[in-house]
Amino acid sequence: MRNFDYMTPTRLIFGKGVVDKKLPEVMGQFGKKILLTYGGGSIKKIGLYQKVLELLKDREIVELAGIQPNPKYDPSVLDGVRLCKEHKVDVILSVGGGSAIAAGACYDGDPWDLISYKVKAKAALPIVDIITLAATGSEYDAGGVISRTETNDKIGYIDPLLYPRVSFLDPTYTFTVSAKQTAAGIADAMNHTIEQYFAEDTTLLNDGFCESMLRSLMVNGRRCLENPEDYTARAEMMLACTYGCNRILSLGNSASGWPCHGIEHALSAYYDITHGEGLAIITPRWMTHILSERTLPRFVKYGINVFGIDATLDQWDIARKAIEETYKFFESIGIPMHLREVGIDGSRINEMAHHIAVNEGLDQAYVPLSEQDIVEILTASL
Amino acid sequence: MRNFDYMTPTRLIFGKGVVDKKLPEVMGQFGKKILLTYGGGSIKKIGLYQKVLELLKDREIVELAGIQPNPKYDPSVLDGVRLCKEHKVDVILSVGGGSAIAAGACYDGDPWDLISYKVKAKAALPIVDIITLAATGSEYDAGGVISRTETNDKIGYIDPLLYPRVSFLDPTYTFTVSAKQTAAGIADAMNHTIEQYFAEDTTLLNDGFCESMLRSLMVNGRRCLENPEDYTARAEMMLACTYGCNRILSLGNSASGWPCHGIEHALSAYYDITHGEGLAIITPRWMTHILSERTLPRFVKYGINVFGIDATLDQWDIARKAIEETYKFFESIGIPMHLREVGIDGSRINEMAHHIAVNEGLDQAYVPLSEQDIVEILTASL
Repeated sequence: MRNFDYMTPTRLIFGKGVVDKKLPEVMGQFGKKILLTYGGGSIKKIGLYQKVLELLKDREIVELAGIQPNPKYDPSVLDGVRLCKEHKVDVILSVGGGSAIAAGACYDGDPWDLISYKVKAKAALPIVDIITLAATGSEYDAGGVISRTETNDKIGYIDPLLYPRVSFLDPTYTFTVSAKQTAAGIADAMNHTIEQYFAEDTTLLNDGFCESMLRSLMVNGRRCLENPEDYTARAEMMLACTYGCNRILSLGNSASGWPCHGIEHALSAYYDITHGEGLAIITPRWMTHILSERTLPRFVKYGINVFGIDATLDQWDIARKAIEETYKFFESIGIPMHLREVGIDGSRINEMAHHIAVNEGLDQAYVPLSEQDIVEILTASL
Repeated sequence: MRNFDYMTPTRLIFGKGVVDKKLPEVMGQFGKKILLTYGGGSIKKIGLYQKVLELLKDREIVELAGIQPNPKYDPSVLDGVRLCKEHKVDVILSVGGGSAIAAGACYDGDPWDLISYKVKAKAALPIVDIITLAATGSEYDAGGVISRTETNDKIGYIDPLLYPRVSFLDPTYTFTVSAKQTAAGIADAMNHTIEQYFAEDTTLLNDGFCESMLRSLMVNGRRCLENPEDYTARAEMMLACTYGCNRILSLGNSASGWPCHGIEHALSAYYDITHGEGLAIITPRWMTHILSERTLPRFVKYGINVFGIDATLDQWDIARKAIEETYKFFESIGIPMHLREVGIDGSRINEMAHHIAVNEGLDQAYVPLSEQDIVEILTASL
């Protein structure tokens, strides 16, 4: 086991009706001036926008709408930082986005200095979030992922200052999430788990946590798709997603390098595809690419404990079947499983592979990936 | 799933050598005057006492030794509170004990008011702890258990103010823990998990987390007993114990009432036995007592997923075998499995059962327990 230094100081307020019950009191701890960040229409469609304004009608609220699924440095981060400074905002209430803005608001220079790790943030505004999509785990982690269009950069910006102080998780807010986005959320959270499971120095404990996550996400994810208003399934999926990126699944494991994320970030930076779909497409191809004598026992364990594959079969058959089951599960929940289906042809594979090899450090991953490896994984994903 | 409001703000600093690397810096965040609390000789035997004094030689350290395995209101809490007030202590460094002292030090009246929940604490001194025994989960929970001899009270005193700010967990400090205390620690942590697993409204996710905990504790616990200096086993056991009482295994489950703890607290209050041993003795008898048509599916799941019992057997056979395996595991790690073996005869069973029924609220447990039920469980444990 590796040494670790760990803390997740976020308060999770979970369940039906929690925003009504506790939002005003929680926001009151952080001041009067609020930047409300959100994406498109869903916050209004589900009545959350109106509810928040009503609950916080005695506060001063500045709004930043239009945060995209792959949040953009320009305009979202830049606009958010400007608004925070102009209005002397005390706290960010995020219904999408907000992390990089919180840091940028307390920094005098270009927020890109922070996002690109050139400068370490010294402070950040407090963030409170209300989750409307079970997927990313941002409600319980210390950052966000920011895309910069002109340079095709997509960077996971992480700093302990960016843990949300409070996250509100009401599963009913996810009832109207489309089948496409629900499936992408399942795939995203499953991949978060897989990225931590395929590592060295794992423990029985962490392996078991990860296997439980995967089984739970598959069973409950399917139930959410079959009946989008199944509260129990939406709730369990929401809770499972919460653990995806806060390290609790892999404390003491060696670093795995999160290779599928490294590759997918380029796909969605270059083509702005749905992150969870990109991950689902990459994951089984990456698995096939890294299956070897060395990694075989991991795949066998994964196959038996996650998919219930017969442990008496030949080990290589178990491993191959496990990868096939992974692919078939993603396919069965409606994810387009080829890059071509999401608008990505082979024309920029070499360019993306080079970008990934230079920027993502995948030569340090669980199974080190060279630029050529990345080309092969992307080509197999077409 | 039930609604919940959850936060564990403790920083875990885990691994070999972490005290040397980070203790001075961490303590520096909280001030100059330190109350160092500890138990008996083990802190000196393993060299930790000398190390702490050396690392903190530029601070003012007040010492409170003699904290017992079942920490006492009188003298430990009373003495600790007095020392904190006299010396205007800034922070408690606990190598055993400390929680109730931290609250009492910031309260003008009798600390028993707080421990007995008559008065809610408004503040507490910060607590930093260094763990030398893998067992209780106090490194990642919000309280301690205090015994008051003259009234036979043993109360779990919990308040969010009492989360340790930082917990240092170096598995090498547990190398010299005796076989008896190692086994009691395994049983304690296993019971923490079982108390949460046997509940209503559990999820696939939480069930899987609990099952992983139990499998990991059994495998690694055995390894620790076979080879007390097996770092990997001691480390995994230490990490698993950390999750025992911080709710992460049961977020969203209905309250189970922690019935074995309710019963055991009376045993160790009346007879001052080792807590983990008391739990191990009670647990299988409690299981047998509550096995019914209603609870059968829980026991079946437990038997299959924790002990690998053949799922094709008759359900009642699986359940009974699961209870038998629980008993046999505790016995196999050297725990005396009868109350008589730890010095408890039947003479005070009725008195203890009455005390438990009045004070522990077990009529609200997963399977409600009356005074008569408690008498029967205790009698079966003789």
